[in-house]
Amino acid sequence: MIKVGIVGGTGYTGVELLRLLAMHEQAEVVAITSRAEDGRRVDELFPNLRGHYQLAFSEPRVEELAGCDVVFFATPHNVAMNLVPQLLAAGTRVVDLSADYRLRDAQLWSRWYGEPHASPELLAEAVYGLPEVNRAAIAGARLVACPGCYPTAVQLGLIPLLAADLVDPAHLIASAASGVSGAGRQAKIDNLLSEVADSFKAYGVAGHRHLPEIEQGLGDVAGKPVQLTFVPHLLPMIRGIHATLFARLRGEPGDLQALYERHYADEPFVDVLPAGMLPQTRTVRGANRCQIAIAVPQQRDTVVVMSTIDNLVKGASGQAVQNMNIMLGLPEDSGLGQPGLLP
Amino acid sequence: MIKVGIVGGTGYTGVELLRLLAMHEQAEVVAITSRAEDGRRVDELFPNLRGHYQLAFSEPRVEELAGCDVVFFATPHNVAMNLVPQLLAAGTRVVDLSADYRLRDAQLWSRWYGEPHASPELLAEAVYGLPEVNRAAIAGARLVACPGCYPTAVQLGLIPLLAADLVDPAHLIASAASGVSGAGRQAKIDNLLSEVADSFKAYGVAGHRHLPEIEQGLGDVAGKPVQLTFVPHLLPMIRGIHATLFARLRGEPGDLQALYERHYADEPFVDVLPAGMLPQTRTVRGANRCQIAIAVPQQRDTVVVMSTIDNLVKGASGQAVQNMNIMLGLPEDSGLGQPGLLP
Amino acid sequence: MIKVGIVGGTGYTGVELLRLLAMHEQAEVVAITSRAEDGRRVDELFPNLRGHYQLAFSEPRVEELAGCDVVFFATPHNVAMNLVPQLLAAGTRVVDLSADYRLRDAQLWSRWYGEPHASPELLAEAVYGLPEVNRAAIAGARLVACPGCYPTAVQLGLIPLLAADLVDPAHLIASAASGVSGAGRQAKIDNLLSEVADSFKAYGVAGHRHLPEIEQGLGDVAGKPVQLTFVPHLLPMIRGIHATLFARLRGEPGDLQALYERHYADEPFVDVLPAGMLPQTRTVRGANRCQIAIAVPQQRDTVVVMSTIDNLVKGASGQAVQNMNIMLGLPEDSGLGQPGLLP
Amino acid sequence: MIKVGIVGGTGYTGVELLRLLAMHEQAEVVAITSRAEDGRRVDELFPNLRGHYQLAFSEPRVEELAGCDVVFFATPHNVAMNLVPQLLAAGTRVVDLSADYRLRDAQLWSRWYGEPHASPELLAEAVYGLPEVNRAAIAGARLVACPGCYPTAVQLGLIPLLAADLVDPAHLIASAASGVSGAGRQAKIDNLLSEVADSFKAYGVAGHRHLPEIEQGLGDVAGKPVQLTFVPHLLPMIRGIHATLFARLRGEPGDLQALYERHYADEPFVDVLPAGMLPQTRTVRGANRCQIAIAVPQQRDTVVVMSTIDNLVKGASGQAVQNMNIMLGLPEDSGLGQPGLLP
Repeated sequence: MIKVGIVGGTGYTGVELLRLLAMHEQAEVVAITSRAEDGRRVDELFPNLRGHYQLAFSEPRVEELAGCDVVFFATPHNVAMNLVPQLLAAGTRVVDLSADYRLRDAQLWSRWYGEPHASPELLAEAVYGLPEVNRAAIAGARLVACPGCYPTAVQLGLIPLLAADLVDPAHLIASAASGVSGAGRQAKIDNLLSEVADSFKAYGVAGHRHLPEIEQGLGDVAGKPVQLTFVPHLLPMIRGIHATLFARLRGEPGDLQALYERHYADEPFVDVLPAGMLPQTRTVRGANRCQIAIAVPQQRDTVVVMSTIDNLVKGASGQAVQNMNIMLGLPEDSGLGQPGLLP
Repeated sequence: MIKVGIVGGTGYTGVELLRLLAMHEQAEVVAITSRAEDGRRVDELFPNLRGHYQLAFSEPRVEELAGCDVVFFATPHNVAMNLVPQLLAAGTRVVDLSADYRLRDAQLWSRWYGEPHASPELLAEAVYGLPEVNRAAIAGARLVACPGCYPTAVQLGLIPLLAADLVDPAHLIASAASGVSGAGRQAKIDNLLSEVADSFKAYGVAGHRHLPEIEQGLGDVAGKPVQLTFVPHLLPMIRGIHATLFARLRGEPGDLQALYERHYADEPFVDVLPAGMLPQTRTVRGANRCQIAIAVPQQRDTVVVMSTIDNLVKGASGQAVQNMNIMLGLPEDSGLGQPGLLP
Repeated sequence: MIKVGIVGGTGYTGVELLRLLAMHEQAEVVAITSRAEDGRRVDELFPNLRGHYQLAFSEPRVEELAGCDVVFFATPHNVAMNLVPQLLAAGTRVVDLSADYRLRDAQLWSRWYGEPHASPELLAEAVYGLPEVNRAAIAGARLVACPGCYPTAVQLGLIPLLAADLVDPAHLIASAASGVSGAGRQAKIDNLLSEVADSFKAYGVAGHRHLPEIEQGLGDVAGKPVQLTFVPHLLPMIRGIHATLFARLRGEPGDLQALYERHYADEPFVDVLPAGMLPQTRTVRGANRCQIAIAVPQQRDTVVVMSTIDNLVKGASGQAVQNMNIMLGLPEDSGLGQPGLLP
Repeated sequence: MIKVGIVGGTGYTGVELLRLLAMHEQAEVVAITSRAEDGRRVDELFPNLRGHYQLAFSEPRVEELAGCDVVFFATPHNVAMNLVPQLLAAGTRVVDLSADYRLRDAQLWSRWYGEPHASPELLAEAVYGLPEVNRAAIAGARLVACPGCYPTAVQLGLIPLLAADLVDPAHLIASAASGVSGAGRQAKIDNLLSEVADSFKAYGVAGHRHLPEIEQGLGDVAGKPVQLTFVPHLLPMIRGIHATLFARLRGEPGDLQALYERHYADEPFVDVLPAGMLPQTRTVRGANRCQIAIAVPQQRDTVVVMSTIDNLVKGASGQAVQNMNIMLGLPEDSGLGQPGLLP
């Protein structure tokens, strides 16, 4: 039985890790930390877990976490980068769901996060945890930086086009929308139901922190720098990301449907929908799955890709478990087999 | 032109007062206070008001407020009771939307609000602002205590039964549900969309602060003490209160539909629906109206009354404007004439 | 491997059966019928099932269904009662999720459903599939009538009080609320998002078809007739039922919390919450679980019970699978082990 | 008093016309037609109108409608084009909210709507009712074709850029999202709350009927053909459209904020938000207003415009009333003065 620790268990990615790991037959959560909720049972805070966990939150202690086979960081940025060096030194593997190790360039990281990076020496070692791109490297990794939610949806949607060099990489557009759970479980007026229900808005248009991560990942695939205009929006619902992606075709693209199906033929968690079917966030609700559709409206020179995930699953905790499975040589879909919850 | 001041303008009852008063042809808001937002334009915080107000929030200053004809308190409890004495002394009329002056008994108030009352000498003078009960007293009042949202819906629903002495007053039941805006515009995890959307729960079952207010009001109508089992619930939506009320009939009640229609025949803002039609919160959304239906299922001895309001309008700011109109001798429906927003 | 057939697979209880059975290691769906969708793959209609089923809808044919070990009817009323006799004759077990076999009295059934019963001879044999009451009888049954969604929540909430003879059985009250999925997947204006989102209403106050079912079940437990005032409401959300139950205590009830905990101590899918915690529909979303809380507000003589389920799981398809497991001697929680989806 | 007739009053644009006209001091609805609801009071179908209308639906009869000063068509396409010739002949002015007269080219219309146009001779006369472009022509018009909801939001967002010739007109992109009320009040499974709540999807990607209307309108402004990639999405909410528009700048654009403010300086219902503020659909809920923001992320060569309206007000019935006001020489904002409903 794999012993799992979770740092920062009171947020939505924390409770989602607990939900998914409750269905994982080879992993057991032995420690979950929270300073604020120290001593409180997790199923008191999250009553959906009653009957599944006896565990209580505890103060984060390196010694305890170091005894785990793998530790997940389900924290805001700026926590993992301070603790990870000690855990790696103790031989513990780490899957970081935060942004701390997603960018390879420490200066770029500092520019977007407004502070120096605390363990820049690990940035080169950290593997970007998008299995569809880095599966082999993840398998041997000590430290995996789990992609952000938007970056997962946007990259999975655009990668086949860039890998096949079919579109102008300097003028990519992502109009993406997320459920409010992406904003975390924090007391903010902006995320009250009364503020965001029954409404829709763009935000972060001037510059969202997921932009450099996406451009880095897509640039790797394209083999050259890419430029993305990224406009995130807030949806009046809890879970789900839908990315609508636009790119200018360089010429006659051939059969894009076939290209996508081929590209993801062996991927267990990327599902290219049949031609004519469009994805909906609800069909991946609770599931570790990305559903994708491709269209070229009016047969002009702009291709549109629609890519959907559950931001808390394939966009966070599900992908984290998928990474853990790969790192530890377990079946990649352990704990991740359930269908989406529909309706 | 009536000069209006609003204390505590950054909450939902504040912005709703501004919305309603923008349509009021004889009133003008000349001051709106907020310590936190001092100097900020109200239409910057509430962009629905762009083009309707040039006003900015200011620090509350008694001198400025005292220059108004009427001052609304759209504050949490414990603000009005400290300022109102000075405003009354200056000759300013007050409509308090908070709980400070709703209970006549200062000790009862202290028991439910956990602190001494700061101006108990005004409790006897304050008029409980339910026009359907106290219209005449409101007309001459200096200080009106606007009813709570649940109390408005519950009392308007039960009053005809109690006034006609048709039901057991010791075993009334109210199963009521409110949109989340009733919880105010405050940064609390409990009211995040991700916590309350797509869910339903009871709360405050052990004792909600609106209980003594309702029992006081109903007791006045009944001419004897009443006892109410009051269970509020939280609805996954912004606006609206629906109270489902149960009472045991003492005997053959006669035509209850006719009784209700007669009782409210002259009330501009209470609408007894035709027999067989049930109220929905959406049909009073944004409107200063209470819609009511009555049923006696299976012709047994339990009567069911359904009573709906918009918690921010007839349950708060609309009723406050109605009270102001009555106090100042204006047409009672000034600023309150628009239909509900449906769908 | 248990061979499962589903009649009427295009509704919400149908797709929910498919979701749950996809996680059931000892059961395999081999036939799913729909006249309207004959020949269409189920994962085309319900893309959450992509990768989980290769199955297509087919016309209902008795011969094919008779080859199954168990057949679920996920149909409106008036379908099962015509087909079940033939399936039983062929030795197939049946779990009927519709209302056809829930009432023992054919005349009562006809009065509420407006037509004669097609196989009244089976009403005496059919076992009412509430495992918490009838587990032993279910184990040997050929035909199980799965309880309605409201009846499950209401009965599980009131049973301990009635079994212990603590309350007046002639004046029970249920103020219950359901998500819109309870109304089924049918093209009706009344259930459009634009009609029911952002609103709340009572319906069926004059008489809901679940009333006789509840009164029959509670009467069995009480050992005498009971009378219930039942007011269902429609919630602006997809899944979830919350029943708020009121009963008059006959005397000093003792420790109700302990009573409930004792009553359900061995039940895998009924969860009496710790004192002071109130249930929310979201904590049972997607889970086969009933969560219950008890309160006696102001220590008066009215007890309040709150009971929540997911109407599509413990209120329909999950309970159906639970019944199947019991009928076939499988572990009762097979396919039903996953936690609720929160947030 | 202007006498108003409404053809097709049972849909959402119908009830919204009634709501707005109830607040219009110079107009009175004297006839509202519906074959299906003939004889039923409008306030029975739409109880938000109780107390505002005594009117009942009636069969559409040309003689009766011809007695009105102005007739609104709040119908699906293919109704107005058959009746309008007779009404114009009778001297009645017409505001058509449907698509029948929006395209000048009858063949193009037939291609998108799949049938011949019934009164193509009127296409040249019909004035496209976007007051911000055609105010003068509207003033003298007998027949105004009210723009679609998406076309209103998209055109108002892009017009300043095209009028100033700042962007590539052949590669415009609109990623737009609408509340479900845009799909009308029709019994369709696809628009059930259980199907569309808590989810988000694109639709009509292959070709939405609003595309040719937008390209026609923007082409007029640009003085040359434009090409738009238009992807509409469905929001899990009732009202509101948000269009996120992308265009490639031809060069250094100068101060776009100032350009937009200047362009709309005299427009009563277009509100260019201050720099840095982004629009939300909720701030225009119920209001006849378009709020717009402009950004150039990372100072690259792609401009992003966000444009929001209430699809039922500025996107339909509000704009229709605005057109009527202009046609009849009334103050343009009669009946349209109320602020948006927030929260």
